[in-house]
Amino acid sequence: MAVARLTSRDIRSESRLVVMRALLAAGESTRGDLAEATGLSLGTVSTIVQDLLKYGILAETGPLPVTVGRPTTGLRLDPDRGRVVGFYLEDRYLEATVFDAALGELATVEVTSAASVADADDVIAWIDGAFDTVLERARAKREDVIGVGILLPGGMQRPVKAATAPDAIWLHLDRLRDRLGLPVVVDNPLKAIATAELWLGAGRRVANAVAVSLGYGVGAGIIQDGAVVRGATNAAGEWGHSLLVFEGRQCQCGRKGCVEAYVGVPGIRRTLAEIAPDHPLAADRSLADGPEGFDLVEALADAVKAGDPAATAAIERSAHYLGAALADLVAILNPEVIALTGWAAWPAWRERVAPIVRRRVREDSPGDAAADLEIEVSPTCGMEGIAAIALERFMRDIGLVTTRVLPAL
Amino acid sequence: MAVARLTSRDIRSESRLVVMRALLAAGESTRGDLAEATGLSLGTVSTIVQDLLKYGILAETGPLPVTVGRPTTGLRLDPDRGRVVGFYLEDRYLEATVFDAALGELATVEVTSAASVADADDVIAWIDGAFDTVLERARAKREDVIGVGILLPGGMQRPVKAATAPDAIWLHLDRLRDRLGLPVVVDNPLKAIATAELWLGAGRRVANAVAVSLGYGVGAGIIQDGAVVRGATNAAGEWGHSLLVFEGRQCQCGRKGCVEAYVGVPGIRRTLAEIAPDHPLAADRSLADGPEGFDLVEALADAVKAGDPAATAAIERSAHYLGAALADLVAILNPEVIALTGWAAWPAWRERVAPIVRRRVREDSPGDAAADLEIEVSPTCGMEGIAAIALERFMRDIGLVTTRVLPAL
Repeated sequence: MAVARLTSRDIRSESRLVVMRALLAAGESTRGDLAEATGLSLGTVSTIVQDLLKYGILAETGPLPVTVGRPTTGLRLDPDRGRVVGFYLEDRYLEATVFDAALGELATVEVTSAASVADADDVIAWIDGAFDTVLERARAKREDVIGVGILLPGGMQRPVKAATAPDAIWLHLDRLRDRLGLPVVVDNPLKAIATAELWLGAGRRVANAVAVSLGYGVGAGIIQDGAVVRGATNAAGEWGHSLLVFEGRQCQCGRKGCVEAYVGVPGIRRTLAEIAPDHPLAADRSLADGPEGFDLVEALADAVKAGDPAATAAIERSAHYLGAALADLVAILNPEVIALTGWAAWPAWRERVAPIVRRRVREDSPGDAAADLEIEVSPTCGMEGIAAIALERFMRDIGLVTTRVLPAL
Repeated sequence: MAVARLTSRDIRSESRLVVMRALLAAGESTRGDLAEATGLSLGTVSTIVQDLLKYGILAETGPLPVTVGRPTTGLRLDPDRGRVVGFYLEDRYLEATVFDAALGELATVEVTSAASVADADDVIAWIDGAFDTVLERARAKREDVIGVGILLPGGMQRPVKAATAPDAIWLHLDRLRDRLGLPVVVDNPLKAIATAELWLGAGRRVANAVAVSLGYGVGAGIIQDGAVVRGATNAAGEWGHSLLVFEGRQCQCGRKGCVEAYVGVPGIRRTLAEIAPDHPLAADRSLADGPEGFDLVEALADAVKAGDPAATAAIERSAHYLGAALADLVAILNPEVIALTGWAAWPAWRERVAPIVRRRVREDSPGDAAADLEIEVSPTCGMEGIAAIALERFMRDIGLVTTRVLPAL
């Protein structure tokens, strides 16, 4: 049966988040300017501001100078409402970042492990240790923390993973919550980059955008109609495992011809190997297999600068693959903005890659679907996104957000 | 800046449509059952029902028998609130269908033209003539008609088409409205099949679905979070022009390797020609080039029944192409349901095609994204969709619908 998308209560809840995002975009604003920026009535904005002030989410910054009429009070998100901590967890790599409650970054730590951290107890201890370290660097205490978010790559949507992968912490989330003594939200990187784009990137000015992540793996965070697209099982956005070439290159996912097998960093290495099988950067797999594969990205940038024709050809062919694959997103989703992160956004690559990508997207997109499309480099990252998700979760815990579309956990 | 997705007024408007859809699904219902079916409060449903009764959208059907308590009043959409007329317009083909206000089909006419109907005046006269004919068959008068919708294939989003194509009527929509003396809404077939699925198909029971149209051309109508995905310029859903094979077959759109070049009916003919170049069904292009290419679909079905191995192989390879291409939709959108219309839904094809498509989608979709996916044959058609869009437009004209997401015209 037809089910109502949102109730009036959800609308109030959504509007609170919209006001928070508008305030974050403006830095400092007034009730009147917020009404104008959001399209909400001044009365609605005033009520929402009252609620958010009451819970300490907003702070008044004092009277603002005006040319006409009585002075108005400035408002901003209160960064000192608390601290939000984001984690990014891989097999042998853990990153932790502390944000203030206005999503400003305060401190970060990276921890690598020589061996795979597989046991759930070890993973929990690893996270707990990094938590202490990063809080100390941010001069924060555990009791300041209002939310913890964990970015967990891969299919963490269901509790079917082998207990030997770091993903398995999702099976033991209650134990992690007990250990940290805090609410913990887990989500996948694609939902995080979409959420970051919504709070801090293109989502501030357009309703339909796609944030594209280009590293070792690749994927898309989708914003449609001002909300993050999650899909039936929180698995939307796996554009990296849509087809570029039917029956094409073997992908690490086990299937053939996926976009990722061409535009993920190991795919770029294979493109180079096809162009120049004996090229030293093609032979050395370790460069592409490091964190996000960015060692290879950097080495290729250097080679191009040194006039290496094979490296140049590999980068350009990769740009064509990327453009063709992005055109599929345009065909299906027709976004206003595609925001790139990862290798295509690297300064050394942008100059060479961006024009090819833009041209190819326009040529390969159906009809006029890409006529007004902006392809830009995103200022956001997944860590900001998981922090924003943790902040949304905190808003729910204190009763200010009720929207039924929630993170997976 | 962050812009509110919906206001409280929009929510009331959305809820009215949700109640209408729930009532359409139930046939006859009560306020209490509608509240249960939609998740809205009984109070909200009662207010909405009052509004809809006032404008004659609903009718009371008298007391319903109950076992306990006092009798409740039955409700239904009032089919006699008016008539809605849908048109499907191609170069040499015009179809017109009359629906009642509960989207029940009353009469249909098809008109073909030996020559291309290119002049705008001729197109308007053609539509006007078919309008009279189909109304007569439905025993309806012009003054009964509350909405007219026109399904216009191709890029009708912008007024950039040559004035010699039937699409050009979109440039002269005011003249068509004047001639018919009625409000006219124009939309593309992908938005129509999505809207049909929302009102009459999978959209009644799930929030995320994709309706896939498989004919001469192919495309997807996308429902996300209970709403039709339109994209930035109403061009979303052009899955038929996403890539199946990088640098693959020439597509009629001018690009290479599009899904449509493999799973559109002319693509099936080419697959047959690759398998058996001298096959009579491969040599005769006219079969694939007729309306929706269904002459070839029928001829191939007959050939398979007669034990033709090349025809069988062509159908099976087309099913593999389709499964792989649908898996891309699963990767990007992660729907709960894929609803097929067109050749894969033909009874003679279903038995052979459906198992291959289902297996291939599961194998090719990333992770568990397709674990709970249902692939089904849709009971809906684009004509019902454009009628539903015209009905939504009527609701807007009488002030009951305010939602800002509107058809293109």
